[in-house]
Amino acid sequence: MNNILEEVKKTKLSSQKISNITTDQKNNILEIISEELIKLTDNILQQNKIDVENAIKENLSKALIDRLTLTEKRIKDMSFAIKEIINLDDPVGEIISEWTRPIGIKIRKVRVPLGVILIIYEGRPNVTVEAASLCLKSGNAVILRGSKETINTNCILTDILKKAISKIGLPQETVLFINSTDRKIIYQLLEFDKYIDLVIPRGGEEMVRNIRKKSIIPVLSHGKGLCHTYIDEFADIDMAIKISYNAKVQRPGVCNAMETLLVHKNIANNLLPQLACLYKKSNVELRGCKNTLKILPDIKQATEDDWNTEYLDLILSIKIVNNIDEAIQHINTYGSGHSEAIVTENIDNANKFLREVDAGAVFHNASTRLHDGGVFGLGSEIGISTQKLHARGTMGLKELTTTKYLIYGSGQIRE
Amino acid sequence: MNNILEEVKKTKLSSQKISNITTDQKNNILEIISEELIKLTDNILQQNKIDVENAIKENLSKALIDRLTLTEKRIKDMSFAIKEIINLDDPVGEIISEWTRPIGIKIRKVRVPLGVILIIYEGRPNVTVEAASLCLKSGNAVILRGSKETINTNCILTDILKKAISKIGLPQETVLFINSTDRKIIYQLLEFDKYIDLVIPRGGEEMVRNIRKKSIIPVLSHGKGLCHTYIDEFADIDMAIKISYNAKVQRPGVCNAMETLLVHKNIANNLLPQLACLYKKSNVELRGCKNTLKILPDIKQATEDDWNTEYLDLILSIKIVNNIDEAIQHINTYGSGHSEAIVTENIDNANKFLREVDAGAVFHNASTRLHDGGVFGLGSEIGISTQKLHARGTMGLKELTTTKYLIYGSGQIRE
Repeated sequence: MNNILEEVKKTKLSSQKISNITTDQKNNILEIISEELIKLTDNILQQNKIDVENAIKENLSKALIDRLTLTEKRIKDMSFAIKEIINLDDPVGEIISEWTRPIGIKIRKVRVPLGVILIIYEGRPNVTVEAASLCLKSGNAVILRGSKETINTNCILTDILKKAISKIGLPQETVLFINSTDRKIIYQLLEFDKYIDLVIPRGGEEMVRNIRKKSIIPVLSHGKGLCHTYIDEFADIDMAIKISYNAKVQRPGVCNAMETLLVHKNIANNLLPQLACLYKKSNVELRGCKNTLKILPDIKQATEDDWNTEYLDLILSIKIVNNIDEAIQHINTYGSGHSEAIVTENIDNANKFLREVDAGAVFHNASTRLHDGGVFGLGSEIGISTQKLHARGTMGLKELTTTKYLIYGSGQIRE
Repeated sequence: MNNILEEVKKTKLSSQKISNITTDQKNNILEIISEELIKLTDNILQQNKIDVENAIKENLSKALIDRLTLTEKRIKDMSFAIKEIINLDDPVGEIISEWTRPIGIKIRKVRVPLGVILIIYEGRPNVTVEAASLCLKSGNAVILRGSKETINTNCILTDILKKAISKIGLPQETVLFINSTDRKIIYQLLEFDKYIDLVIPRGGEEMVRNIRKKSIIPVLSHGKGLCHTYIDEFADIDMAIKISYNAKVQRPGVCNAMETLLVHKNIANNLLPQLACLYKKSNVELRGCKNTLKILPDIKQATEDDWNTEYLDLILSIKIVNNIDEAIQHINTYGSGHSEAIVTENIDNANKFLREVDAGAVFHNASTRLHDGGVFGLGSEIGISTQKLHARGTMGLKELTTTKYLIYGSGQIRE
């Protein structure tokens, strides 16, 4: 990495090429990547072993070591994930709208690739291959900057990406791997707004916020999920139990799991003891507001901190509210704008909740765990955005594109 | 402005109210604003006089003083501009798409307001009223921070906005006017990403770049326009002359005016003398590349600086290119991604240009001056974006909104 700016400029130039190839050509690249991963499994595992041994030497946590470790099975999964991206519709070239003006010009709004996408990520090496494949499928060049703990694995994985790209005659620079662990390089990259069109940080909240602060390039990030389920007084009790249990327990470590349960005071006495019993069997730690403690006297009292915490764990805070307005207000104050749910048989309350709760996805009588590109039928996602600009909620290939107006005239000028 | 954070929090809270009122109610607010501007013309002119007198005392430039000066006519124009916004379709509530999944959930993607929009602007006081009205019509609360030179005028104008809002029963805090000229307040505001959803800076390139750098809130800006027209070897000469003349001369001070003319070498001898003659009559200063000077020996030689300059004036740089690829490369290197045009009768060349030029709007056989929300039939614009995220090209009411997924279930959970 002698001159990072020169490298980035080359990637920008090659982005023009990949933006104009056919869907078949792009799928061809992905096909090669998917196959090479399988063919080169032994070599990948060898390189990964170096990273794992270094991680052990450096006394990294078990969880971290597990995340960076590859196995034959994990490589197969990566290869299969690429096959799924091949099956997705190509968003590039879509005609979004088209109309003719009285002066005779025809205007067409079409979908085009963004250009160059920079992905800064931590931990799992599968991001190298999967995120890059989503960028390539949507016609973008990609710059990859993984963490130093996985540098040997990422090196061989990006070699596979580059080889696949050369094979169909595109410049290798379409994929740029930042083969340096120097942090200063990240800050340099975040200034190159003339050559990089989008930054996608994938990692902890602190890392994402830091990148947002330093970057003059637009940032698209997978946000934190502080999700609520509100059980209205008019809820079907069985459904309420089923949804609340699923939203907390089915997979607690992910962003669309529930962290706080809001319960209408008129249904609390009936609902909470049954639910607490179920949660107890699954080892969920409950923390309740003062009124919850009157019904469930054995649990811990929740503090202000609890309403603000994304546990990502088998912990749940519970608050009894006086009415739906209080529930909405609590969510709009503490929620992260990710996924929120109401359980009720009252249509007016459902509609009020769907309208007034400010979040990427709002559910009526369904679990927040369903907020997912695959479940929604939109294909592999690059994450779930809690931002409001450009992308909100689950982000797929479309969110890696932009639009362009094409105007067809016959000599029209401005009078 | 004792506690700016507290003020902003109140505006965030009131944004929930305006996000849920009807189109009629929003038009009602705008109607009142439009009428009050006319009724209070004398009072507005009085306050404006104070600003103008201060500007004269401070020896501000004539151009600047002209921009901040209001007249009866200019107030009438403002009032009329609001009427036009009333006539625009309300984007809020639009169902963008809707589908049902095999598990039985119905998913609906709808358009909703962003929340709170901060507008930071210089110069013209009409921005206070027009930009705020676009925000209100799209269901957003708005924070206004004008320049110190217009503070008295902006004070009375925002009073009118606030009064109109109270009249229909919404909290006055829906419009927050930053009645302070302290620059530090801007930097404070740019940190409040929990309460402000979007920043729109309107001013010079330096000011916009500075805000981009400091803001952790997403920024949407009207970009600079370094626009080109490329005259292909297969152009209709008369059309080429008409379009090139219009793109430079009709209104040179705006962002979609042409700054550089690219001419294919095979047509240059025929085209350039005729065009130069026309430009001369309109006092356009020409600056040419070496080959242009062989045809037009009396003009100045263009330097590298010229290819990089948005003149916003009656100055034009001219470059002769060997082929269409050289033209596209020049545009993708020096252009600002705003508006670009090709004049040609060759369909393959036209399509190649439309496909490969990376800009918000690309024109075939039409003037770049046509890039405008009104001309495109999209209504009043808040500016033209040269960014690629969220909005590209002319930005109207739709660009002041975001989307939300609404999911209608009957007890579905994640298995």
